[in-house]
Amino acid sequence: MNLEIFDSTLRDGAQGAGINFSVEDKLNIVKALDDLGIAYIEAGNPGSNPKDLEFFEKAKHCRLQSAQLVAFGATRRRNIRVEEDNNCLSLLNAGTDAVAIFGKAWDLHATKILNATLEENLHMIYDTISFFKEKGKTVIFDAEHFFDGFKNNPSYAIDALHAAEKGGADLLCLCETNGGCFPDEVSSIVDEVKKQVTTPLGIHCHNDSGCGIANSIAAVLAGCKQVQGTYLGYGERCGNANLSAIIPNLQLKRGHICIPENKMQKLTTTARLIAEIANQPLENNLPYVGRSAFSHKAGMHIDGVNKLSRSFEHICPDQVGNERHFLMSEVAGRSTVLKKINKIDPTLTKDAEETQLICDTVKQKEYEGFQYEAAEASFELLVKKLLGQTKKYFHLDYFKTVVDEPSVQKYSASAIIKVTVGKQTEITAAEGDGPVHALDSALRRVLVLFYPQLSNVRLTDYKVRVLEPQKATGAKVRVLITSSDEKDSWTTVGVSTDVIDASWQALVESIEYKLAKDEEINDTDPNS
Amino acid sequence: MNLEIFDSTLRDGAQGAGINFSVEDKLNIVKALDDLGIAYIEAGNPGSNPKDLEFFEKAKHCRLQSAQLVAFGATRRRNIRVEEDNNCLSLLNAGTDAVAIFGKAWDLHATKILNATLEENLHMIYDTISFFKEKGKTVIFDAEHFFDGFKNNPSYAIDALHAAEKGGADLLCLCETNGGCFPDEVSSIVDEVKKQVTTPLGIHCHNDSGCGIANSIAAVLAGCKQVQGTYLGYGERCGNANLSAIIPNLQLKRGHICIPENKMQKLTTTARLIAEIANQPLENNLPYVGRSAFSHKAGMHIDGVNKLSRSFEHICPDQVGNERHFLMSEVAGRSTVLKKINKIDPTLTKDAEETQLICDTVKQKEYEGFQYEAAEASFELLVKKLLGQTKKYFHLDYFKTVVDEPSVQKYSASAIIKVTVGKQTEITAAEGDGPVHALDSALRRVLVLFYPQLSNVRLTDYKVRVLEPQKATGAKVRVLITSSDEKDSWTTVGVSTDVIDASWQALVESIEYKLAKDEEINDTDPNS
Repeated sequence: MNLEIFDSTLRDGAQGAGINFSVEDKLNIVKALDDLGIAYIEAGNPGSNPKDLEFFEKAKHCRLQSAQLVAFGATRRRNIRVEEDNNCLSLLNAGTDAVAIFGKAWDLHATKILNATLEENLHMIYDTISFFKEKGKTVIFDAEHFFDGFKNNPSYAIDALHAAEKGGADLLCLCETNGGCFPDEVSSIVDEVKKQVTTPLGIHCHNDSGCGIANSIAAVLAGCKQVQGTYLGYGERCGNANLSAIIPNLQLKRGHICIPENKMQKLTTTARLIAEIANQPLENNLPYVGRSAFSHKAGMHIDGVNKLSRSFEHICPDQVGNERHFLMSEVAGRSTVLKKINKIDPTLTKDAEETQLICDTVKQKEYEGFQYEAAEASFELLVKKLLGQTKKYFHLDYFKTVVDEPSVQKYSASAIIKVTVGKQTEITAAEGDGPVHALDSALRRVLVLFYPQLSNVRLTDYKVRVLEPQKATGAKVRVLITSSDEKDSWTTVGVSTDVIDASWQALVESIEYKLAKDEEINDTDPNS
Repeated sequence: MNLEIFDSTLRDGAQGAGINFSVEDKLNIVKALDDLGIAYIEAGNPGSNPKDLEFFEKAKHCRLQSAQLVAFGATRRRNIRVEEDNNCLSLLNAGTDAVAIFGKAWDLHATKILNATLEENLHMIYDTISFFKEKGKTVIFDAEHFFDGFKNNPSYAIDALHAAEKGGADLLCLCETNGGCFPDEVSSIVDEVKKQVTTPLGIHCHNDSGCGIANSIAAVLAGCKQVQGTYLGYGERCGNANLSAIIPNLQLKRGHICIPENKMQKLTTTARLIAEIANQPLENNLPYVGRSAFSHKAGMHIDGVNKLSRSFEHICPDQVGNERHFLMSEVAGRSTVLKKINKIDPTLTKDAEETQLICDTVKQKEYEGFQYEAAEASFELLVKKLLGQTKKYFHLDYFKTVVDEPSVQKYSASAIIKVTVGKQTEITAAEGDGPVHALDSALRRVLVLFYPQLSNVRLTDYKVRVLEPQKATGAKVRVLITSSDEKDSWTTVGVSTDVIDASWQALVESIEYKLAKDEEINDTDPNS
């Protein structure tokens, strides 16, 4: 069966502790989810804050391949017409083809939280849904607290659905808002509901009992056609149902189509990308997409997987674009590193002295805080340095950066840099927002005099992690810098107790990598 | 019904990536679990490593109140008698009253991984179980891969259970080793098994499909009497079934007794303690015991919880010893902000002009990248500033920081700072690892001349987040600084495109907060 996947990372996910998206972040996440083939992307509550308004304004210019953007809002307030309710009007102004309207399905909420009568609440649902239907929208009705409501007063919960159905809702989404249910309850309640409504059903689960994924699956098995969740389970309290597990669970194991088959291998990279944009560490043990999801540590398990992978793996990691890892195993360790070394020098064997030296150096560097998983360019440079295959492109005579407060000019920081290439020495200076920015500008300004190809290199990503936060401002930091030219993108790493020094290391390697890369291309160019 | 909770944090949990227990750690975890009233603690595989041997030696002297220690091991090897199998003998030597013996229940594993015949494997199970029964042990049979085995060859999987039953096993634990099942499968398979064996059943789940908790619950609802898992879900790949959620799920919602009623409130502190011992951050969003499990951020949710807590909480956080939190954020409504404002000025109402001003300012600041969730001290200062309740403790005349490469001295950076307090002006300088460190030192050196109480303030945490990484070194950064004195700990935030400037904002607020806090204490001191 074809299911509709409805992602609310940008709306319900943004309610998670520590999650804070910029407008730019939101647009990037929309792109990532669209690229994965998600059907609906709920992107905000335009009535609630200025950032969401700005987002929907900008999003009007996005061309999406597969996804529909959804704006989210409440039913009209009590004692006011929909046409006069500012939140409803903001929702309309968001200009999306689809809207999700949430309303109360738990009698207790209608009376105690909204202070409405039961009858009034049903009118609020009907009026709001029919208003948006008249405006030509696809309307999803989110029946908030449906399961708690049904347990408390089943006929009223159904009345709420009927009000939305009468208003013309395209889909009735049953929300397990408090997240405390178990799959057996979800199954039996969905079964009951199916007998009483004709509109297609959706499911929206939270994870407070740790059953968000299982409850969503139970609802689909009972007949729901739409699954709402957030891609990495971000959300208030214990989070929302985690779509990065629900999608492969249903698609690989139960034959439902959630996203196009040829997108399945993007599940893992999409997870890493979204975590990156959200600036959250990706939990290693996340089902399917975590770095440890297919990591084996016990000797017997490694042995078993080597004989027959399905002996200790529920699916093949390739199916979701993830990888198998063997932990704490010298042999496994070396063969992984060897694979990478052989890309640079295919003649090196597992037992070669150089391989041993490289493995030891990598271990030492990682112990110091370097991390090469995300910084392959630095790894390549390290291997080449140890193999004597690098050359020195420039000599730093010195640099000096100064930060002044109050600042004299528009920029607070300036940098002076002097370098020598061959026999020629050049000195230049630049200003910037802070010392790293000034230094970055100065370095590229001076080197472009010698290497004009650097003019098309842009730094596209800059990350700082404090490694020993308890040492406060004297702590070690790891800086990752991603650079791009017209063809490629590469990441380098630097580690130091000084953020300037760590950034400098990563900046220098970024340039060294670019220059070495261009030389190799020229060397192998058949026309040269 | 009384259930047996069987914790394997120290055995299966130790297979998790990044988990590494010392003997001391293990003894401390045994104490914590015993104190919580856990029935069985599986503490290691004495045949597999010297650390576990040492542990069991020391554990003989532990007096436990409620728990039984369990040692874990495999069935005898093929072609060898139990009495001659070193692993079985080590298991015996561990000296525990209870042992868990795992054997193959999946025909594929017996033949392809053990290279045994199907018949041989059954003998291995029978022989090993009956050997330990003859030695007077309580014997739990872990039927490895039972569910995959049952799907592949149901009658052989049952044969494996019968072999253990014939050997005298006290409990047959059905293991969902690869972690890929869903609750509906677990339910129906347990139902089938119950018809064919008389020995009590247990369940052991992994979390590869994200259903570890739900699968364990499904098995209990189908009749299993023992639940195996790890307290915080630690374990290989995606981890084991998480007992800190399973226990309250079953005890608070389905009336099973897992641990003594008066221990329920220890669930949260036990989680924090075990995470501390394991040296792992406790995931904030863990059901029941995570710091965010009862954190509310959306304005409407906060409003609802204030009116009626069960409107947005599946249980009351007290029941498991956890706490409710309201997070500050742009989506948080006025009532959250008001609660915090009222701590500073109890007279302000929700509709006061000042409240509106504060809410608008907080929204604007968050839009600029500030985040007050983790920086309550900065939030307090902001509110006080807007209410005109702050005073200026010093005036910055200027600072200047310089970074030299190559560095002239041990330290790469130095800072000069000049401040005025009242009519007195002071200037000083300091060196540091990088400009932030130098500036931090210089600021405190100069201010301590005026405010000696600053001498016992230490910076204990320093975090940097790049907010728009794609703007590279020109991007905005958010800095969080945590400071402590002998009594308290507080966190402040700064945002800027310049890491120095962002750090400076957070440093200044850290000091302002400290000075204001000390004055309030003096003001309210009855002896003053």
